[in-house]
Amino acid sequence: MLTFFLDKQSDSSLYEQLYEQIKLAIAEGKLKKNEKMPSKRKLANHLKISQTTIESAYNQLLAEGYINSIAKVGYFVTTDLELLSNRKHLPIQGYEKIKHDEFLVDFKTNQVDSESFPYEKFAKIERDVILDNLKNNLNRGESFGVYEFRKKISEILFSYRGIKASAEQIIVGSGSEHLILLLTLMLGRDKIYGVEDPSYIKNYLLYQAYGVKVKTIPLDEEGISLDELMKQKCDVVHVTPSHQFPSGIVTPIKRRMELLRWANENNNRYIIEDDYDSEFRFSGNPIPALKSLDKFDKVIYMNSFSKTLAPALRISFMVLPANLIKVYQDNLGFFSSSVPTTNQLILERFIALGEYEKHLNRMKNNYKQKRDYLLKLLLESDLKSNLVIRGEEAGLHFLIKIKTDYLENDLVEMAKDKGLRVYGLYEYFIGKPTDEGVKTIVFGYSNLSFEQMQEGVKLLSLAWKNI
Amino acid sequence: MLTFFLDKQSDSSLYEQLYEQIKLAIAEGKLKKNEKMPSKRKLANHLKISQTTIESAYNQLLAEGYINSIAKVGYFVTTDLELLSNRKHLPIQGYEKIKHDEFLVDFKTNQVDSESFPYEKFAKIERDVILDNLKNNLNRGESFGVYEFRKKISEILFSYRGIKASAEQIIVGSGSEHLILLLTLMLGRDKIYGVEDPSYIKNYLLYQAYGVKVKTIPLDEEGISLDELMKQKCDVVHVTPSHQFPSGIVTPIKRRMELLRWANENNNRYIIEDDYDSEFRFSGNPIPALKSLDKFDKVIYMNSFSKTLAPALRISFMVLPANLIKVYQDNLGFFSSSVPTTNQLILERFIALGEYEKHLNRMKNNYKQKRDYLLKLLLESDLKSNLVIRGEEAGLHFLIKIKTDYLENDLVEMAKDKGLRVYGLYEYFIGKPTDEGVKTIVFGYSNLSFEQMQEGVKLLSLAWKNI
Repeated sequence: MLTFFLDKQSDSSLYEQLYEQIKLAIAEGKLKKNEKMPSKRKLANHLKISQTTIESAYNQLLAEGYINSIAKVGYFVTTDLELLSNRKHLPIQGYEKIKHDEFLVDFKTNQVDSESFPYEKFAKIERDVILDNLKNNLNRGESFGVYEFRKKISEILFSYRGIKASAEQIIVGSGSEHLILLLTLMLGRDKIYGVEDPSYIKNYLLYQAYGVKVKTIPLDEEGISLDELMKQKCDVVHVTPSHQFPSGIVTPIKRRMELLRWANENNNRYIIEDDYDSEFRFSGNPIPALKSLDKFDKVIYMNSFSKTLAPALRISFMVLPANLIKVYQDNLGFFSSSVPTTNQLILERFIALGEYEKHLNRMKNNYKQKRDYLLKLLLESDLKSNLVIRGEEAGLHFLIKIKTDYLENDLVEMAKDKGLRVYGLYEYFIGKPTDEGVKTIVFGYSNLSFEQMQEGVKLLSLAWKNI
Repeated sequence: MLTFFLDKQSDSSLYEQLYEQIKLAIAEGKLKKNEKMPSKRKLANHLKISQTTIESAYNQLLAEGYINSIAKVGYFVTTDLELLSNRKHLPIQGYEKIKHDEFLVDFKTNQVDSESFPYEKFAKIERDVILDNLKNNLNRGESFGVYEFRKKISEILFSYRGIKASAEQIIVGSGSEHLILLLTLMLGRDKIYGVEDPSYIKNYLLYQAYGVKVKTIPLDEEGISLDELMKQKCDVVHVTPSHQFPSGIVTPIKRRMELLRWANENNNRYIIEDDYDSEFRFSGNPIPALKSLDKFDKVIYMNSFSKTLAPALRISFMVLPANLIKVYQDNLGFFSSSVPTTNQLILERFIALGEYEKHLNRMKNNYKQKRDYLLKLLLESDLKSNLVIRGEEAGLHFLIKIKTDYLENDLVEMAKDKGLRVYGLYEYFIGKPTDEGVKTIVFGYSNLSFEQMQEGVKLLSLAWKNI
């Protein structure tokens, strides 16, 4: 009879040790296919352990199919396993940790001010929601999102963006990744999608990844070019009319109307209005959303809480035209929500308590101060005569056109040499920039302190002192 | 000169009223394209309000493109708008609220016990994470998920499932919706995917929605049929080897090895191991994951915290074979995480503090007690001689084969007549059930109280008293 060495001092139980050793004996061919196992009684006597221990080990081996049992005859090995392994840790080939260059100051755009998030308030509301509200919602994950939360979104949309949308039209999703996915599935893979160029390149990559035809449409001074849209035979166009990213262009009312008319000419056509940072306009009121003018119900409105609260929350939403609601429900209604129920309940309460509005007002002031300070630093620096500032009225970035003979890329590289990251407009082009001589730098400032801005402009003056 | 009626008692500011009324005048054709607007001074005198108010209104109209400004000449209407509307709320056609039938007792399977969630602990950890930890993570959303959390998942996988996977191999995602999406994008739309039949039908629907070819593969008594897998020329197969859903079959070691060998025969082949509820095995140890035997690195392991914690959390994850990590990073690395950073940090701490392990042990006992109680009720009921119980060793459901001349569907309908929802095995078939005479009912019990189970079995005895 095969013997097994069991260690009573070991951390694993005797049953686990025995089970492991029998498995090993099978793997090593010491126990062969169809071989009869010793009876529980015999093995217990042989190993001087209880029959219950043997039984537990045999039961586990039975459950996993290493042995089978024939009533009143005994247990038999079922398999010969050349494959079973104490599998070694495979080396992780091909994985390179993504390296982010470290800069002294980084004027990146997709950030919120991490000093100003209402941590205490949020923690309190989270706690209240978990203790008061989660029990009835623990097994929820409805496809459109939590209804109460969607109702609050509908209220916000009306008061901030002039949009009349009912909660039934709203779908909550975890980022543009999810919403654009749902749209391509609803609108169809056979459609031609158009995106602005330059733009937030990720959206272009998403359409590509999802396997749909996507065209880049150039801008003129009023936003996306309608002529190009038609020339390229787009069915669906993804635009940022209230504050084009990154150019800052506000599409005027005339072009908006033309866009709406274009969409209404054909049943297949839709406009996706990406309203990513329209809440922050520093003079006057926000520009009303294109959706608020959408008499024909051809605009799919999309926004997120990434700029108004934090990217880490991963909460976005969209407003569907009425006729797409049924398309979604019939075809994709089996999807569970991509956003945790808790997070939706928390944000619902955050809005209901008026905290969202307070936070937005606070942040508008905060970002305005930062913008003013950075503009002041730039306009008082040695660079001042080389700079033309644009698109500073809204959003969390502005553009500076530089008067110089250097190329845009040179400007970015000179800044990098001083440990500074600024972004050339060319970095936002999907195709080739139409005008090589644009020489425009995009400045984000939302998560920079006043000290960092000082440092940044000081370094920039050094970097560009000979332009 | 056009006049405007401004109400000083109104909630809207004078500037907003003026802006709205000028817009309306343009929309109604009272102000025509190219018409010169009154100068700020003149209009201020005329309306007896300050010039600053006029300026604010004109600036907003300028920003939105209703008027333009020619230096030293004045402001001009830019557009004639037949389209502009005080858009009425569109009726939401085609939207029907999904109606869920209400039952006295519902033996559904996809639930956790909402009485036993560690609300207090969770609330405390959430609070700590938000106050201590969120500031540095507010702008994070890395594609693979939060590294520290993935490290914890890797530890859990080793101790509960015998899987040696490094954090670098793990991708966190919001449910199978997201993970299956990423897989179809990584493995390719040209591949043929196979799913078990019967199974959790949602996965089949997901593959379909994502536009890939998906075949249904029947089961035999050892799990998925390898012959059918080959006959249908599948490249990728989605299986639940440790506890087939819903049949409860544990795929024995021999079939597991055959599956692994099948996958290793061709570079294109992969096995997706869906390990949805393997943590709950009521006798002996959990069945080791197929992935733990995966010497060739052909298994993509997938699991979630939906059964172990709650569906509402929407946190799933998968382990990629080493060679797919680079594929993901190169092609989909621009995706932001679909799970909020906060939630990942919270779960990381929940695990690190040992709370996850405690909760699992507690729930294993809890669910075992519920299972034992329900089995006892059934085996002591008037129905006892008609019942054969199966698949009760593991997971949060079991099956009962009913000895009767009635059809399975009749049994379900008779139960419904008494306000009771039980689930026929046929409801989990994508194609036609292979054997019409199976007459097997799937019982979930995880979110039922003892009282509800009593009530349920009482009603069932009435419903089925004449079978």
